[in-house]
Amino acid sequence: MSKENPITLGVLISGSGTNLQAIIDAIDAGKLDARVGVVVSSNPSAYGLTRAENAGIEHVAMAVEDYADPIKADQTIVKILQDHGVDYVAMAGYMRMVGEPLLQAFPNRIINLHPALLPSFPGAHGIADAFEHGVKVTGVTVHFANADMDAGPIIAQRTVLVEESDTVDTLEARIHETEHIVYPEVLQLIAEGRVKVEGRKVHIS
Amino acid sequence: MSKENPITLGVLISGSGTNLQAIIDAIDAGKLDARVGVVVSSNPSAYGLTRAENAGIEHVAMAVEDYADPIKADQTIVKILQDHGVDYVAMAGYMRMVGEPLLQAFPNRIINLHPALLPSFPGAHGIADAFEHGVKVTGVTVHFANADMDAGPIIAQRTVLVEESDTVDTLEARIHETEHIVYPEVLQLIAEGRVKVEGRKVHIS
Repeated sequence: MSKENPITLGVLISGSGTNLQAIIDAIDAGKLDARVGVVVSSNPSAYGLTRAENAGIEHVAMAVEDYADPIKADQTIVKILQDHGVDYVAMAGYMRMVGEPLLQAFPNRIINLHPALLPSFPGAHGIADAFEHGVKVTGVTVHFANADMDAGPIIAQRTVLVEESDTVDTLEARIHETEHIVYPEVLQLIAEGRVKVEGRKVHIS
Repeated sequence: MSKENPITLGVLISGSGTNLQAIIDAIDAGKLDARVGVVVSSNPSAYGLTRAENAGIEHVAMAVEDYADPIKADQTIVKILQDHGVDYVAMAGYMRMVGEPLLQAFPNRIINLHPALLPSFPGAHGIADAFEHGVKVTGVTVHFANADMDAGPIIAQRTVLVEESDTVDTLEARIHETEHIVYPEVLQLIAEGRVKVEGRKVHIS
């Protein structure tokens, strides 16, 4: 796609939104032919909402009680995303599962980021789990979301070496740095129409 | 250790013995300060036995019936290894589990090689499993054997990128190439006394 006709992203967050910021910065730098149509947060006090506000991006905060019925919450989010013309959904530290309403509304169009080399170390503690396991290589995985947590088709993986001097904090810092590079790069591949899913395999042309 | 006082390796094989050959070649090239005291095969027709013979290395073939009682088989192997002055045991395509007699006789002294980035894709089909899962990065893991299959403390990992044009065969070829480089390198670190195990973590000084 050309910059005259960029894709519209919806970004789902729950926290500080550093990957949202990386997306915003990549767009501003001309490295990502996209616009962020709307940011949806599962947490009304997420700092990522302030980042959206500062960037002049529309944003919506869900409340904890909105998730009492997860299906209804998903339906609400689908409507918000569709109302903002969203083509692709980028999860960026979104701490809720995406359920059937979202997956059906955006089939193979919801992208997630995981701070480990999946299928190793899925779940909420991918960095610490890898460190405690004593791996010598970990990294970052960008994948399509599906009904199973952290198990969708893998679009890209980047490695981060565990150094002898690492603590979980220094490792975490390098993994986040890597995320902020690889996530906008993968979204750009998608914006260029170069990413195709075939079963479990993702082909990049 | 100096070349005047190299470590003595026992190598366990079941098949073609390409990693045994990589060890022999590294020793011949002066890159690995070790000698192979004995090769033990779980399979009497393993080509690795011919490689041992060609290199003038003592070798012993176990028979299928020797494993009818796996504990006794392990005890036999321990005796063979000890009779040949073995310091460290290198598994090289050995398709049997190492049981308690071996683990107790050589605590944190049995090294294994796995053709994937553990803990992803343990088991007998690590390369094909990774390929079918659609990972973008896989690799090789060198680890100490323990009672759980492919789960001991990790000494080293090297990555192999999965290319868009790869078949499982081309991927397998690159993984084996990587194995033949990394395994002698790790054994040399051990020969130099630079490898220390602490719980699940392996420290390299």
